[in-house]
Amino acid sequence: MRPAENRHAPLAVYALLGLWMAIGSLARPVAQQPAPPAPVLRGFSASRAAAQSALEQRLQRLPDPARIERHLQALTAVPHMAGTPASRRVAEYIHDALRSYGWQAELVGYRAWLPQPIEVHLELVAPRSVLLARPEDPIEEEAASYAADVVAGFNAYSPSAEVEAEVVYVNYGLPDDYARLCQLGVAVEGRVVLARYGHSFRGVKVRLAEENGAAGLILYSDPADDGYVAGDVYPRGPYRPNSGIQRGSILYIFRYPGDPLTPGIPATEQAPRLAPAAAASLPRVPTLPVAARDAADILAHLGGPRVPREWQGGLPLTYHLGPGPATVRMRLRMDEQQRDVWNVVARLPGERDDEWVLAGNHHDAWAFGAVDPSSGTAVLLELARVLGQLAREGWQPRRTLLFGFWDAEEYGLIGSVEWVEQHRAELAQKAVAYVNLDSAVSGTRFGAGGTPSLRALLREATDAVTDPRTGRSLHEVWQQQSSREPVSAGADANLPVGLLGSGSDYTPFVHHAGVAALDLGFSGEYGVYHSRYDNFQWMRRYGDPEFAYHAALVRLAGVVLLRLSQADLLPFDFLTYAAEVQKAVGALQALVRQRHAPLDLAPVASAAAGFADAAARAEQVLRAAAADAGRSAAINRRLRSIEQALLHPEGLTGRPWYRHTVFAPGTDTGYAAVLLPGVREAIERHDWATARREAAALAAALERAAARLEEVARLAAPEPPAAPVPVGAGAARR
Amino acid sequence: MRPAENRHAPLAVYALLGLWMAIGSLARPVAQQPAPPAPVLRGFSASRAAAQSALEQRLQRLPDPARIERHLQALTAVPHMAGTPASRRVAEYIHDALRSYGWQAELVGYRAWLPQPIEVHLELVAPRSVLLARPEDPIEEEAASYAADVVAGFNAYSPSAEVEAEVVYVNYGLPDDYARLCQLGVAVEGRVVLARYGHSFRGVKVRLAEENGAAGLILYSDPADDGYVAGDVYPRGPYRPNSGIQRGSILYIFRYPGDPLTPGIPATEQAPRLAPAAAASLPRVPTLPVAARDAADILAHLGGPRVPREWQGGLPLTYHLGPGPATVRMRLRMDEQQRDVWNVVARLPGERDDEWVLAGNHHDAWAFGAVDPSSGTAVLLELARVLGQLAREGWQPRRTLLFGFWDAEEYGLIGSVEWVEQHRAELAQKAVAYVNLDSAVSGTRFGAGGTPSLRALLREATDAVTDPRTGRSLHEVWQQQSSREPVSAGADANLPVGLLGSGSDYTPFVHHAGVAALDLGFSGEYGVYHSRYDNFQWMRRYGDPEFAYHAALVRLAGVVLLRLSQADLLPFDFLTYAAEVQKAVGALQALVRQRHAPLDLAPVASAAAGFADAAARAEQVLRAAAADAGRSAAINRRLRSIEQALLHPEGLTGRPWYRHTVFAPGTDTGYAAVLLPGVREAIERHDWATARREAAALAAALERAAARLEEVARLAAPEPPAAPVPVGAGAARR
Repeated sequence: MRPAENRHAPLAVYALLGLWMAIGSLARPVAQQPAPPAPVLRGFSASRAAAQSALEQRLQRLPDPARIERHLQALTAVPHMAGTPASRRVAEYIHDALRSYGWQAELVGYRAWLPQPIEVHLELVAPRSVLLARPEDPIEEEAASYAADVVAGFNAYSPSAEVEAEVVYVNYGLPDDYARLCQLGVAVEGRVVLARYGHSFRGVKVRLAEENGAAGLILYSDPADDGYVAGDVYPRGPYRPNSGIQRGSILYIFRYPGDPLTPGIPATEQAPRLAPAAAASLPRVPTLPVAARDAADILAHLGGPRVPREWQGGLPLTYHLGPGPATVRMRLRMDEQQRDVWNVVARLPGERDDEWVLAGNHHDAWAFGAVDPSSGTAVLLELARVLGQLAREGWQPRRTLLFGFWDAEEYGLIGSVEWVEQHRAELAQKAVAYVNLDSAVSGTRFGAGGTPSLRALLREATDAVTDPRTGRSLHEVWQQQSSREPVSAGADANLPVGLLGSGSDYTPFVHHAGVAALDLGFSGEYGVYHSRYDNFQWMRRYGDPEFAYHAALVRLAGVVLLRLSQADLLPFDFLTYAAEVQKAVGALQALVRQRHAPLDLAPVASAAAGFADAAARAEQVLRAAAADAGRSAAINRRLRSIEQALLHPEGLTGRPWYRHTVFAPGTDTGYAAVLLPGVREAIERHDWATARREAAALAAALERAAARLEEVARLAAPEPPAAPVPVGAGAARR
Repeated sequence: MRPAENRHAPLAVYALLGLWMAIGSLARPVAQQPAPPAPVLRGFSASRAAAQSALEQRLQRLPDPARIERHLQALTAVPHMAGTPASRRVAEYIHDALRSYGWQAELVGYRAWLPQPIEVHLELVAPRSVLLARPEDPIEEEAASYAADVVAGFNAYSPSAEVEAEVVYVNYGLPDDYARLCQLGVAVEGRVVLARYGHSFRGVKVRLAEENGAAGLILYSDPADDGYVAGDVYPRGPYRPNSGIQRGSILYIFRYPGDPLTPGIPATEQAPRLAPAAAASLPRVPTLPVAARDAADILAHLGGPRVPREWQGGLPLTYHLGPGPATVRMRLRMDEQQRDVWNVVARLPGERDDEWVLAGNHHDAWAFGAVDPSSGTAVLLELARVLGQLAREGWQPRRTLLFGFWDAEEYGLIGSVEWVEQHRAELAQKAVAYVNLDSAVSGTRFGAGGTPSLRALLREATDAVTDPRTGRSLHEVWQQQSSREPVSAGADANLPVGLLGSGSDYTPFVHHAGVAALDLGFSGEYGVYHSRYDNFQWMRRYGDPEFAYHAALVRLAGVVLLRLSQADLLPFDFLTYAAEVQKAVGALQALVRQRHAPLDLAPVASAAAGFADAAARAEQVLRAAAADAGRSAAINRRLRSIEQALLHPEGLTGRPWYRHTVFAPGTDTGYAAVLLPGVREAIERHDWATARREAAALAAALERAAARLEEVARLAAPEPPAAPVPVGAGAARR
């Protein structure tokens, strides 16, 4: 489901550059005494660091590209959409593999609202008749593409409907696009709007079409965005052919993801269910995705004004707005059924089973799903094998490792959401962090998103892993790719780790359960997202022909998980978190001034400052804390509760499933995150009462987090004179 | 021949904005006494200004759009390429019309090298066979487009040749494009290069292909430049259809224009002639223009690296550089003949026949030629009728009016160049100014270029003429179109009048004969340049459906010509000229510093300052000069000699046909002008000896011009106390 555009919103990235700069200065006022020597590994005592390094080195020797390739080939042999027997077979394949690696694995089923298309009909009826919604062309030299059972192009959760109306072209279908159409005097009400994919989650496009009174929505892939203008198309190159269709869900996941009929509770067989008509996450506008060539037939028959210059796409014609004369008839029939979905959940039990280190990916795909999602699945399976091998060699994880392979992510994060809803209380107690690996490899460029507390850990882990192409550390290559500046010492500020919005299975962990998360992968030129061309041959030709980047990701995820699992003190970094929050509060204050909002953010700013002070104090004492096991457990319990502390007890106004006070996926973006969402979105709606309530909740959350950090600082403070063994949970920077 | 892109180079335009600002301050130091009241009309004594205004008002009432439309229809009835019987018939039509309007008209013939194509063959031979060089599609609803005798797409003066080679795509074929290809390791030597039209004169593209060792050149019209990306294509809109071909000459007019076999002398029957192999203006690389759809078939079969991002055009494919596998066979056979060309030259004799006010346009066209050139021809014919009508009513021009209708401009300004070469001595004595009206109307946006001395006159004339669409003065509309700033008093600085480079018939007047010139027109969305679609129906649909802008141009050109013809003192403005020169000298000094050139420009700067001082002194006394006829004649003789004074006695090094020291068409642009070309281009070649020689010639030219201005100042100075009647050749600005 992950958007094909950028792994993480570039704006967020640039905001971070400034943030990282600020961190040193934040820490300084507190750090009066000379800093202790830099710890070898964040969270490890010196005495345990050597063993950890040896363990990591052993792990890094084990990944085998040939095994990953075999997994990918097996996982992508047939289309395996959620709710189909093929998807169940993929779950069984995963389950069996995990068992063979020595993991405790089980299939975990839910029953979700999962309609499939019965009829997808689109026809240009005026000014001439053309049958559209044509299927994707098979590629002659690829047996895989001949498979007859690739589902038609459809958008999951579109209502069934029959519509006939004139067409209006709405560019990307963003709020600004509708505003522009209004200025230009082109009404969309009662019309079928034609929008190109990109710049927002497709479900947001549907909601905006709905808000603007459209009778239907046709989504298409413009060659300017992921087709021949971007680069050569498959099979000559990695971009989308003119016949390629981007399938995808239009569920209103920005309200709540998961089974639309069971918001907030697990979709077990017996769960009470909403009627579909009452489900707030189900869209109401009939929506259909088509290929560039279908869109060309419609656009060629639009009259009305020429489009604004930047609305012109890459099709070989002059784009017009309409309305009409192009008139389409769209007939969509969905089977409106519930279906079983099958997660695979596996564990490698730790010395202590009350702390869980999680990783996961989905396993369902719209078609063959090589990049999305199976690249990540193959990586996780190989990592499970490698960890199983370490276990066979006598190692036991300190904390339990738990891998989730989620079903029906493509429909709307169904499998992961239902599981998290079922285990929310346990996760609140036990979860340390969740590492997500969706669409994990489509090229060689490393990218990551994560909750701020895990960014330092990630950056340090990239130091331990080698980039296959260059032979240099991944850290160094990432640094160079992320910046046009020459690499210099201490240039970690250039390493962009995005915010986590939505679009993959970290969503329920971060936004609903308050679990710190990372999202990792290598990306490249990938234009075949959600089409039949995202297949094994594509990966062999373009994505990762040697499976070297898959193997590198096994190593990186392995090192991250081993550090989370083995550390004496959990390797979180709350200085970064506090700096991010303070910067976001500053931006919010600017927005308040700009909008002349009757809103006093001083309590929020004060709470954020308190959070930052507490983080600095905690960081300072953690650096020097003793590694006694009893105290560590108490400290760690508090450390992993801090993300929880930032949750809104009642959830965000209007979408209570989202509970994080610091981040949420944007209501108008769908994928990209917004910061301090409760307050910000209320201000944007001019809803001052809500803004004040959300501000109070935010301040309270920050105060709770600060209090936990104060407890950490108190617990970690040297009782007698300073302990002799420095323990590294510090904010060391090279 | 005029380029379809911009009438005048935007850079020149912006340079001017600054210039105009400077003018006021330049004038101030000299103007110690309080300024006399603003003159009514530049160059007219108050006593004659009223009569002039009445005359202009009478003139403005006479133009008749219906007559202009009938002329355009007649002129564009059939294709009339130079050297064909149809072109001769057009000349006779013009001649007969002028006679009927009471003008003295004659056909003036020359014999020029004017090959026509016998065979134009282009074929993709690998990796598959496609016959290219397909003719333009006729438009069903247009009888005109059915005419069978539109010449094939060809580039005039391409050598005959047969070439078979792999293709390399070279973007626009500019110097930077070849440099980029070199960096990318793609060799063009021995290959056929495929270049899109735009950003330079096509002859310059051929010269660069030649310098880079190409075996052949295919020019094409990319939809991103004048096709469907720019706007709807004909007949739905005014842009170029995919089958549209831009014909055009590739003569090296930046060396010398006109008949290639008789440089510098008139191509009379008996003139001595070069062998074609010895003619420096004849290109050596076989060159052929094709339509977008032909280029698409070649580009679709190019391998090699992807093009740099900004080289991707608007065709529906991913552009690659090659070389090959696309391989073309090109076979061009030209008939290598001389042909007769027929100018029409007409006069309306003035009270004094030793001063000529000229106007002109070409009459030959590549096909039907509605915009290019017949819109200007129709305007000039209607202006001739109107002036003839005034004459019938008893008026006689003070100075002789001379209209030239030039043949074979499309081949390389042949008719005008040969005529100017024949009459150079007489022009040097008599010519006041030349007003050019090529491709005069393709829309509603006014644009102009001109020698600096005429810009103030032009700006003032636009005050007297009404813009048809808005009913406001053309001056005001021009001002608003040229600037996003609100109109304010004294905002003339925003009125861009470009420099004159080349591409139309002002070239021999300005650059060879030293005659001040203007070039006027209304432009719009015009994508059908040099194709069969530039026809009468196009004009009726898009260019000027009511022929109102044609009529407005009759009025504007009429007012300009009447002022040039009737003024007591010639309405030149040398303050503007001097400011332009001083700014150009400043830019040249910056270039010298940047290149560390061993070149002392102090004498040039000093001469430019002297020119400016003399201009300021002349301006000051001219404002207050008495209007006695004897003195006026002496002053005017000197005033019109100043442009002559700026000519280089030996011509520019390497291209002596170009004699102006201040402007020339750029060697690497072809159309756009460069300032102080002798020195500048020598510096760019690192040829310091030439640069020094050219600098000396430039300084000498500026000194000659200053001396003439000093004479003007002396002649115009009040002998007794100041004359009572203020005479307006002043630099009044509203």
